[in-house]
Amino acid sequence: MLPGVGVFGTGSTARVLVPLLKAEGFEVHALWGRSEEEACCLAKELGIPFHTSQSDDVLLHQDVDLVCIYIPPSMTRQIAVKALGIGKNVVCEKAATAVDSFKMVTAARYYPQLLSIMGNTLRFLPAFVAMRQLLVEGYVGELQVCDVRVYGPSLLDQSYGWTCEELMGGGGLHTVGSAIIDLLSYLTGARAQRVHGLLRTFVQQNSLIRGIRRVTSDDFCFFQMLMGGTGSGGVCCTVTLNFNMPGSFVHEVMVVGSTGRLVARGTELYGQRNGSKGEELLLGDSGWVGPEVKEMPLPHLRGLSSMVKALRQSFQAHEERRSWARGPVAMAPTFEDGLYVQTVVEAVKRSSCSGEWECVEIMSQEPDPNHNLCEALQRNKN
Amino acid sequence: MLPGVGVFGTGSTARVLVPLLKAEGFEVHALWGRSEEEACCLAKELGIPFHTSQSDDVLLHQDVDLVCIYIPPSMTRQIAVKALGIGKNVVCEKAATAVDSFKMVTAARYYPQLLSIMGNTLRFLPAFVAMRQLLVEGYVGELQVCDVRVYGPSLLDQSYGWTCEELMGGGGLHTVGSAIIDLLSYLTGARAQRVHGLLRTFVQQNSLIRGIRRVTSDDFCFFQMLMGGTGSGGVCCTVTLNFNMPGSFVHEVMVVGSTGRLVARGTELYGQRNGSKGEELLLGDSGWVGPEVKEMPLPHLRGLSSMVKALRQSFQAHEERRSWARGPVAMAPTFEDGLYVQTVVEAVKRSSCSGEWECVEIMSQEPDPNHNLCEALQRNKN
Repeated sequence: MLPGVGVFGTGSTARVLVPLLKAEGFEVHALWGRSEEEACCLAKELGIPFHTSQSDDVLLHQDVDLVCIYIPPSMTRQIAVKALGIGKNVVCEKAATAVDSFKMVTAARYYPQLLSIMGNTLRFLPAFVAMRQLLVEGYVGELQVCDVRVYGPSLLDQSYGWTCEELMGGGGLHTVGSAIIDLLSYLTGARAQRVHGLLRTFVQQNSLIRGIRRVTSDDFCFFQMLMGGTGSGGVCCTVTLNFNMPGSFVHEVMVVGSTGRLVARGTELYGQRNGSKGEELLLGDSGWVGPEVKEMPLPHLRGLSSMVKALRQSFQAHEERRSWARGPVAMAPTFEDGLYVQTVVEAVKRSSCSGEWECVEIMSQEPDPNHNLCEALQRNKN
Repeated sequence: MLPGVGVFGTGSTARVLVPLLKAEGFEVHALWGRSEEEACCLAKELGIPFHTSQSDDVLLHQDVDLVCIYIPPSMTRQIAVKALGIGKNVVCEKAATAVDSFKMVTAARYYPQLLSIMGNTLRFLPAFVAMRQLLVEGYVGELQVCDVRVYGPSLLDQSYGWTCEELMGGGGLHTVGSAIIDLLSYLTGARAQRVHGLLRTFVQQNSLIRGIRRVTSDDFCFFQMLMGGTGSGGVCCTVTLNFNMPGSFVHEVMVVGSTGRLVARGTELYGQRNGSKGEELLLGDSGWVGPEVKEMPLPHLRGLSSMVKALRQSFQAHEERRSWARGPVAMAPTFEDGLYVQTVVEAVKRSSCSGEWECVEIMSQEPDPNHNLCEALQRNKN
């Protein structure tokens, strides 16, 4: 039996997610928005019976068994941890910091019977599922290089907000790069051990963000990851993100190995084995019939759709509303994966400041908050 | 009046160059090859009346006024410097080291009346000539990012030789990267101040190179350049070279600015201004009618062809065989440009070892040879 759903957020992802959930048979009972007005407006539009700006009203709602959290990163940890504490299953977007991610991991470990997955969606995209399968089957031979490019228009909101602020989790690296970092660890079966990167904010002001306000989040980022783990000691990943390209959207993930290569362009998968004359189309795009969203690139949209399908399969296997089967969502990123991704993001940011390769060291215990305070003071001083 | 030409080299470039020279009306009088046999064979094939394996026989040949040097990098400096000393005009490929490049600069400065240009050919490609013009005219607004990708099959020769040896000037960075480094300084009007890079040799042995022999030259290279100079303080260049991709050839140079972007794919130029719906074709490829060469990518082939045309224009302006006009070859890279490129190549290699950003410092005086010896000994010890 499918669980009742409560959705946090009124942004473009939440707006797409609700119809996708409904299409799979989920009932969305409650919507939370930062303001009463935003919540009311979107609830009406999407036909959700209850809306609020009080998070507890959704978390404690008796018909809500699954909470989907698509809100600004800085607010995610609080809601996610609380939801688990109340006994709700959680799908959520990334948090703003590694410390927040670590707190989410702690909560998820404490409630292993509850579903807790990152709403990071590229893993579910059929092209990447197929790419991973082909990598395992040895299509490219020994994996050498992953090369990712995402180009698109500005990620900034119309008005000044968290998307403009690096410390609030804005910027291409945090928003899009984190999905790529997760994807690459999924595809390679390995994790970054050392990273190097460079971030830039080319557009610091625009017609809407001006005066004393400045954008601090990156609109250009490239980084390299040297992957570790069994059999992948030598894999180099290079990622280029450029969000100063209005009117275009390029999403290309290429993996090159000793005997061939695979490349996902948008939602399609191509491959070429060494010695063959040209590329072969391995997985076409059968055409998207769901909602079109200007702000959301097709790979993310399709991935989200596939994830909702997996959620349906996971829950419908059981009679009880809150029970779920691990199988269909086994490939989803866990909160542990979320912590890894956040750790890489922060290492890339450190590297951009230091100019050096930075090690990716996953937090194993929560840092002393006083130590954090000292660091924050230190940072302000500089 | 066109000068008589002597060609050094029997490789794929020399093989293409001779017909291109002849097509423009140059007479090729002499060919040098490393062995008598190689020289004889190619001279017969291309209809060159004189061949030799003694460099002086070409340099002192009375009908030779222009010397084209397309030989392994480690031999280039010696021939180029000697040719200038004998009073011949010189077009040549890159040398193996910055010290060699510096010696060539010294010779070129000593004989300013002689033509001395690097046979680096991408600057002459019509797509890049047009790209530079559009950059100057402000098509992309304020330049932010240059992003270059070159993918192709292995650069190794069939048999073991200099192409396998990093210290002999082999590898993707030295062979192809140097043409890109030169091109980017031409396009941006600026020079790299700091670079960061990563080199890999994924294929260290193959069916032809095995046993105790190993390839030391890179087949994968990723580097970034932060450009300096007036008005380009913030330009980031990223370059990805991958020569583990048999059966494909990708040559893409993209420049992104505040109001638009330009991208050269192969020999064609596309552009898109922010706000416009799609890319426009700015310069198509009218179809290549010259010789097809498997080892030589079309952009290099076309660039070489355009350079030969420019050489013809430069020389035919004058009555005297050895005189030339600066105008038509003004855009060609000088030996000073060659030194800059070599300096960047070496800085990228240093960065790949150190893991740090390396400064690009152009040599201003020849280093003490004893100091070099010490370094070489030091290197051997490690």
